[in-house]
Amino acid sequence: MRKRNRLSAQAYIDGVLNGDRVILSQAITLVESALPTDQVLAEEVMDAVLPHAGKSIRIGITGVPGVGKSTFIEKFGWLVIEQGYKLAVLAVDPSSQSSRGSILGDKTRMEKLSMDKRAYIRPSPSGTTLGGVSARTREAMLLCEAAGFDVVFIETVGVGQSEIAVKGMVDFFLLLMLAGAGDELQGIKKGIIEMCDALVINKADGDNKEAAQRAKREYANALHLFPAKENSWNPKVKTCSGLSGEGLPEIWQMIQEYRDLVYSNGFFEFNRAEQRANWMHEHVKYLLETNFYNDMAIKKDLDESLADIKSGKVSAIKKARALVQLFMNQILR
Amino acid sequence: MRKRNRLSAQAYIDGVLNGDRVILSQAITLVESALPTDQVLAEEVMDAVLPHAGKSIRIGITGVPGVGKSTFIEKFGWLVIEQGYKLAVLAVDPSSQSSRGSILGDKTRMEKLSMDKRAYIRPSPSGTTLGGVSARTREAMLLCEAAGFDVVFIETVGVGQSEIAVKGMVDFFLLLMLAGAGDELQGIKKGIIEMCDALVINKADGDNKEAAQRAKREYANALHLFPAKENSWNPKVKTCSGLSGEGLPEIWQMIQEYRDLVYSNGFFEFNRAEQRANWMHEHVKYLLETNFYNDMAIKKDLDESLADIKSGKVSAIKKARALVQLFMNQILR
Repeated sequence: MRKRNRLSAQAYIDGVLNGDRVILSQAITLVESALPTDQVLAEEVMDAVLPHAGKSIRIGITGVPGVGKSTFIEKFGWLVIEQGYKLAVLAVDPSSQSSRGSILGDKTRMEKLSMDKRAYIRPSPSGTTLGGVSARTREAMLLCEAAGFDVVFIETVGVGQSEIAVKGMVDFFLLLMLAGAGDELQGIKKGIIEMCDALVINKADGDNKEAAQRAKREYANALHLFPAKENSWNPKVKTCSGLSGEGLPEIWQMIQEYRDLVYSNGFFEFNRAEQRANWMHEHVKYLLETNFYNDMAIKKDLDESLADIKSGKVSAIKKARALVQLFMNQILR
Repeated sequence: MRKRNRLSAQAYIDGVLNGDRVILSQAITLVESALPTDQVLAEEVMDAVLPHAGKSIRIGITGVPGVGKSTFIEKFGWLVIEQGYKLAVLAVDPSSQSSRGSILGDKTRMEKLSMDKRAYIRPSPSGTTLGGVSARTREAMLLCEAAGFDVVFIETVGVGQSEIAVKGMVDFFLLLMLAGAGDELQGIKKGIIEMCDALVINKADGDNKEAAQRAKREYANALHLFPAKENSWNPKVKTCSGLSGEGLPEIWQMIQEYRDLVYSNGFFEFNRAEQRANWMHEHVKYLLETNFYNDMAIKKDLDESLADIKSGKVSAIKKARALVQLFMNQILR
C-alpha cells in the first residue's frame, strides 16, 4: 500500500473547525481510508470535532435515475444558500460495480452550486468492501457540520439498501418521483415509502403539470393507508419543478415545519440518539473487518487460503472459520 | 434467547441428502440462526453436504416491483419442472424495514408451483443485521442442491445492493423489465445492466405486444454500447408473457446455450471459483460479527455503552473502538 501524506491531527481539527474547504476534503479522505494508522488518526480528528457537529438539518434525497435529482439539488440547494445557510451535499453511490465509476464523475452536475463558496459538494466512493458506504458518509457529514455547514443533503441513487443506511443518518427523508409512471414502475417499495417524510413529484412543468397534480392526489390518498409514524409527522406530497424552481420554496417551508414539530415533540433528539447507537454498531463492524484484513497473520495466509478455496481443496466456510480463529488468537496491538 | 430444538448433524445431513423437504427446511433455518451453537452445527452440516452441492444451474431473477416476477417464476418454473428438473426458488427480500414483512407472506404467490413436489419455494428473512442476506442465501442454495434440486432461482426485489450480492452467487443473471416505461423509470442503473446476461421484457401480451417488440430493439441496441463481458456471452434481449407463457421456452433455450458456452470456455468454473472466494470474505464478516455480539464481555457492556452513546456521554466511534478492543483481548473459545 502506498504511503500517503497526512497532516497532524491538530492540523485537520483546526482546518475543519475553521471551515477550510481543502482541509475538510482531506479530512474526509482520511476517514475514508482503510489504513490502520489513518483509522487511529481519523478517530482522533472525529473525537475532537464531534462536539462542534450535529447542528445542521440533515436531509436525505433519493429517487431512481432519471427523476431529476441533480437538477433538483442544484436549484433547491441554491434556494437554501440564498436563505443564508451553508450547504454540504454528499452523494452516496452504490452503483456500477463493474466500472466503479462515481456518478459525480460527470463534472456538469450541479455546476452553479459547485462553484459557490456557500456550498460544498462531495461524492462518496462506491463499492468498498471494507467498511461500507454508510459509516464513512456519516463521518463526512459530521466533518461538514463541524466545518460550519448547517444544511446537509445526502443524495442516494436508486432504491435499495443505501436508502436504509441513509435513513439511519438524516433528520428528513425526501423521495423524488415522477408523475405518470405509477409507483410500481419507479421501484417504489412499501419499505421506502414508509421511510419517507415527503414524496415530491418532480418535473411538474409544461405539459406534465396536470399529471403531476393527479399523481399528487393519488399519492396523498395512498399515504393515508400507512400507519402513523412515531414522529407524529404526516408525510406530505408536493409537486415541484427542479428546472423552473417552482414549488421549491414550499418544500423548504415544509422542512422547516417538520423541524419545528420534531424539535418540540422530542423526536429530533430521540432519533439522533438512535442513530448514534446504530453508528456504534456500524463502526464495530468496520473495525472488526479492517483489523482482520490488516492483521499480519491474516495477510500472510490469505492468498493461499483463497487459492485453496478456488481450487476446491477446502470449503469457504471452513477456511473462514480457521482464519477468524487465527485472527482471534492475536492480541490487538 | 429461547432454546430451540435441533436435530443431530447427521440427521440434518442424511435428511438433506435424501431430499427430505421438511429436514431441508429445518437445515436452512439452522444456517440462518445466529446462535453460536447453531453456527457450529450448521458448519458441520454444510461441510458434509458441500461435496453433493454445486450441480445445479443457478439463475438470478430480478426486476422492480410490478414487473411480474411472481407470475413469471410461476410459469417459467413450471416449464422447468415439466422438462424433468427439480426446482428450488429462493427469494431475497431486503424491503420493508419498518414492517419486517416478507414478500412471501402473500400466500397466493406461485400457488401452482408451491404445491408441486418437484419444486421447493423458500423465502429468505429480511433485514438481519448480523450476517446479511447474501451469505445465508448462498447456504440455503447449497442445501437445496445437495437435496437434489438441479435448477435454482434466486429472486430479488428492487434494484440495489441485493442484486450485487445475488450476482455473486448465480451462474446466469436475468433482469425482468416492462415495455414503455423507459429504462430510467425502472430504476435500471448502468451497473445492473452490466451484470445482466439477459434482459427479458415481460407482459409482452395483448395490446402491449408491439411496445414490447419496440423496447426489445431499443435495449438490444443499447446493449451493444457495453463492453464485451469476460464470459464472451453477448447479453440477449427477449420478450415474454409470464401470464400466457409465450416466449418462456426461448428463455429456457437461451439459458441452455449460455450454459453450454460457459462450460466449454471455462468461465463457468472460473466464476464459481471467484464466488467461493467471495463467500469466504462474507463468512469472515459474519463470524466476526456474531462472535463479537455473542461474546460474554460484550453482552455485559453493550446496553450501558449504547445508553452512554444515546445520552451523548461518549462518542459512538470511541465506544466502538473500546468494545472491539475488549473483544479482541478475549481468546476464542
